[in-house]
Amino acid sequence: MLDKLKQNFVDHVRNLQNEITREIKRIDPSIELVEDNWDRLDFAGEKGGGGITRAFTGDIIENAGVNTSVVYGAISPEFAKKIGSDDATMWASGISLIIHPKNPKVPTTHANFRMIQAGDKFWFGGGADLTPYYPYEEDFEYFHNVWAKACEPYGNYDAFKVKCDEYFVNKHRDNEMRGIGGIFFDHLNSGNTEVDLNMVKDLSNHFIDSFFPLMDKRMDETFNEEDEDFQLHRRGRYVEFNLLHDRGTMFGLQSNGRTDSILISLPGRVKFSYKYAPKKNSPHEKMLEYYYPRDWARL
Amino acid sequence: MLDKLKQNFVDHVRNLQNEITREIKRIDPSIELVEDNWDRLDFAGEKGGGGITRAFTGDIIENAGVNTSVVYGAISPEFAKKIGSDDATMWASGISLIIHPKNPKVPTTHANFRMIQAGDKFWFGGGADLTPYYPYEEDFEYFHNVWAKACEPYGNYDAFKVKCDEYFVNKHRDNEMRGIGGIFFDHLNSGNTEVDLNMVKDLSNHFIDSFFPLMDKRMDETFNEEDEDFQLHRRGRYVEFNLLHDRGTMFGLQSNGRTDSILISLPGRVKFSYKYAPKKNSPHEKMLEYYYPRDWARL
Repeated sequence: MLDKLKQNFVDHVRNLQNEITREIKRIDPSIELVEDNWDRLDFAGEKGGGGITRAFTGDIIENAGVNTSVVYGAISPEFAKKIGSDDATMWASGISLIIHPKNPKVPTTHANFRMIQAGDKFWFGGGADLTPYYPYEEDFEYFHNVWAKACEPYGNYDAFKVKCDEYFVNKHRDNEMRGIGGIFFDHLNSGNTEVDLNMVKDLSNHFIDSFFPLMDKRMDETFNEEDEDFQLHRRGRYVEFNLLHDRGTMFGLQSNGRTDSILISLPGRVKFSYKYAPKKNSPHEKMLEYYYPRDWARL
Repeated sequence: MLDKLKQNFVDHVRNLQNEITREIKRIDPSIELVEDNWDRLDFAGEKGGGGITRAFTGDIIENAGVNTSVVYGAISPEFAKKIGSDDATMWASGISLIIHPKNPKVPTTHANFRMIQAGDKFWFGGGADLTPYYPYEEDFEYFHNVWAKACEPYGNYDAFKVKCDEYFVNKHRDNEMRGIGGIFFDHLNSGNTEVDLNMVKDLSNHFIDSFFPLMDKRMDETFNEEDEDFQLHRRGRYVEFNLLHDRGTMFGLQSNGRTDSILISLPGRVKFSYKYAPKKNSPHEKMLEYYYPRDWARL
């Protein structure tokens, strides 16, 4: 039974990887795709599964990564302790993706859905969040509305939205958020793995609708040097979050994950400047107000 | 006596900050300097010293930071534990600097010299290291020769060189170094604070000679797009090191240091690409061989 559920999840993330790949190719005909099928060894040096990494670069989508993996086997005692397990083996599968469009009027997005087993414990984690660079409030409402509607049957949007606001935060930047949030959940286990599995699958199926319509809507808009300068500096904050605070990145690197697949999340071009600030009364200065928790869903 | 030594060190780092500022202005007449004099509160909310941050941007030096600080007062129990002290107060002063030239033929450099007191214990730390982007072996030899000669009276070049090779390492990148090393030391305490102080002052006085002649020599060289692309990707590794591994950055951010002054170390423009690799048989591919420990001093 559990093996069947695991296989069901693996099949799902692989399908979703293909669907998102198709959307990226549709949006950006210039896109170049590098696909790497990789294997890993577990902590004991035995076969420990692997993954499919897809790295995209193009004229419209500057860079993107859409990765799936199924990993299993022995883990180090330190890592077992970190994930709160008293068993020295684990199984995990998931999809993790990030899209950095070139046009600053199109937001960056990130999503991730995973199923984890440690010993006889199962749990799910994941979410989707948006990092816009231009104050199009209607786009932020659109993104949150899709997720609020997706969560409606399960009554968990409010809880997942708050968790997202709390997670993607640059504590060293006076608690400024990485973007405008979305949904986030971890250690999800209702006691019925099949029910949880179906919910996570259902949620993950809303990712395409939450993001690509924004891409379609904004990707041909004109932008100027100031728009891009703001975007590149905000990408800097994105890098700061991912390398200083993101648990997924840290766990991945500390558990001898595949570095190139993990750091695929970093944006292609980035800028850092001492005390960077956008121009007074610019749309970018306005945008800074939005990197704090706010109710966006309008259902 | 100790107060006199502390004041002596503070005066020294302030003088050195001015000397290095003069060199930067000499090298790059286009340079813009932003100086911030900041104060901080200690862990108990009392006056806790402050610093002078100097941020430079220009046509020749893309960005640089030359900071000094004198901080003191109550520290958190966690921070005391981290620095190995059983006293809840500290005093620290130092100079920390980073120079990111625009021309990829000129290396990036970083140096830092500090004096720390926790309870009745004193120690010194610091060093200087080089991150070149072009395989000019003679420049690497030059840099190490200056430091080998500086260390000669104290017989510590070999030890400090090894510590530097061990410290500036991206463990998540198969132990590739950030650059080609230099010298590094920490928790230095011979039992005679005055002797240690004079040594650290003497070493720090060699920084200008270790770097600026390389700047003078290379800054007008031509470079092409590939040279720059390699430089921007190596700056990406620089960012990875500083945010994932650098103890100074982590301690600074975790002890509620001044974020803008700490992250002044990040390069102005950066690139990240999935599995970035320079062209086959290019000087940049050659350069990759040098990011591992090697003997450079030729005295």
